[in-house]
Amino acid sequence: MVNEAEHNKIIKPVAVIHTDFSEKFGIPRQAGLVPELEARIELMPEFSKPEAVRELETFSHIWLIWGFSENKTETANLTVRPPRLGGSTRVGVFASRSPFRPNGLGLSVVKLKEIITGKNGISIIVCGADLLDGTPIYDIKPYLPLSDCVPNALEGYTAGTKNHRLKVVYQPEMLDALKDKKQALIGILEQDPRQTYFQEPSRIYGLYFAEFNIKFKVSDDILEILEVQKL
Amino acid sequence: MVNEAEHNKIIKPVAVIHTDFSEKFGIPRQAGLVPELEARIELMPEFSKPEAVRELETFSHIWLIWGFSENKTETANLTVRPPRLGGSTRVGVFASRSPFRPNGLGLSVVKLKEIITGKNGISIIVCGADLLDGTPIYDIKPYLPLSDCVPNALEGYTAGTKNHRLKVVYQPEMLDALKDKKQALIGILEQDPRQTYFQEPSRIYGLYFAEFNIKFKVSDDILEILEVQKL
Repeated sequence: MVNEAEHNKIIKPVAVIHTDFSEKFGIPRQAGLVPELEARIELMPEFSKPEAVRELETFSHIWLIWGFSENKTETANLTVRPPRLGGSTRVGVFASRSPFRPNGLGLSVVKLKEIITGKNGISIIVCGADLLDGTPIYDIKPYLPLSDCVPNALEGYTAGTKNHRLKVVYQPEMLDALKDKKQALIGILEQDPRQTYFQEPSRIYGLYFAEFNIKFKVSDDILEILEVQKL
Repeated sequence: MVNEAEHNKIIKPVAVIHTDFSEKFGIPRQAGLVPELEARIELMPEFSKPEAVRELETFSHIWLIWGFSENKTETANLTVRPPRLGGSTRVGVFASRSPFRPNGLGLSVVKLKEIITGKNGISIIVCGADLLDGTPIYDIKPYLPLSDCVPNALEGYTAGTKNHRLKVVYQPEMLDALKDKKQALIGILEQDPRQTYFQEPSRIYGLYFAEFNIKFKVSDDILEILEVQKL
């Protein structure tokens, strides 16, 4: 039996990520589901030097190990209820990617778009991140397809839940203000940000994305954008 | 700018892994390279209950986030020298999977073979682990091919280094004592456990694996097993 306390570890952020999500509602359930989403990773001052990312640009994808920053509970339950299973079926915490887990660590693969060396240090621009704005990053690693890509891996109980997509309808001029973030917003909405499949066609939802509040409703598999408010 | 100290985090092992590697020499450079390698993950008492792994058996592969337990240095260099590049080329620490990194976290995908509920708790039998015996595990997550498998990801500077394999020769009876671990040992040796490609055909190497000390030498691309000592 291992001595537990001996292996307790203090980890410190190596970077922080800036995304267009100021709250959890709307964040894609996994990384890569909305590839149009751009985010900026800023290395902490002690790592913010070109040598720390030397040759990183030769990879197309990178891993982020990060902290579920909104999850401050000390004790984690042994089971969780994945939203994709309707929210009532319980699975083991180690059989899920839920944020409510021992140590509160998240794992996401994102596409590497660009590394910028500015006078304030190194920024890494990535696509497809499923992280809240301001999330601390505890490690950045290259994605190695030889070991990390397992094409024949089984999807387990998540099989069959992945193809649910909404059709997003809107007045064309409504999304002009979003400029180059328009496709990312549509991608988010197509994924169906609602917690469960419970049908409540009269309910108006509000989703914060970048500097906008997006109002929408959903009926059957059609999501209608009602309003785009600039904050 | 984020407040660094605010996001410092204490993490505690959720499990410990038992492998056939009592030292670093011989451990495959990445998970999955030697699929015959079996290891046993034992959950810590507070998580060692069937509900913590409920539905985990529906997945074929799992992620381990673990601690490089032999790496006790407090400060990490910004660059490292990957063995696969010959040991003299430096790349950024965030462009490598080196153990010598800030926070010392490792990431490995392993094949899930079996979950055993015994009177001492839950054990998870996995294949392909590249971890030292006794390594603390900080998280276990299901591998989700939809987000985690990126078949078109670029291999970066690691391209072209992956196909180096040795031919392993030995007297047939020499490996009888290894029983069902024979193929795993051959897999380890085929990967070329030596640190660099420096040719030193007269050198005799010793590799500890399970309860054996394996003596071998390498000439050109042929590895000859000289002796198998039971410890």
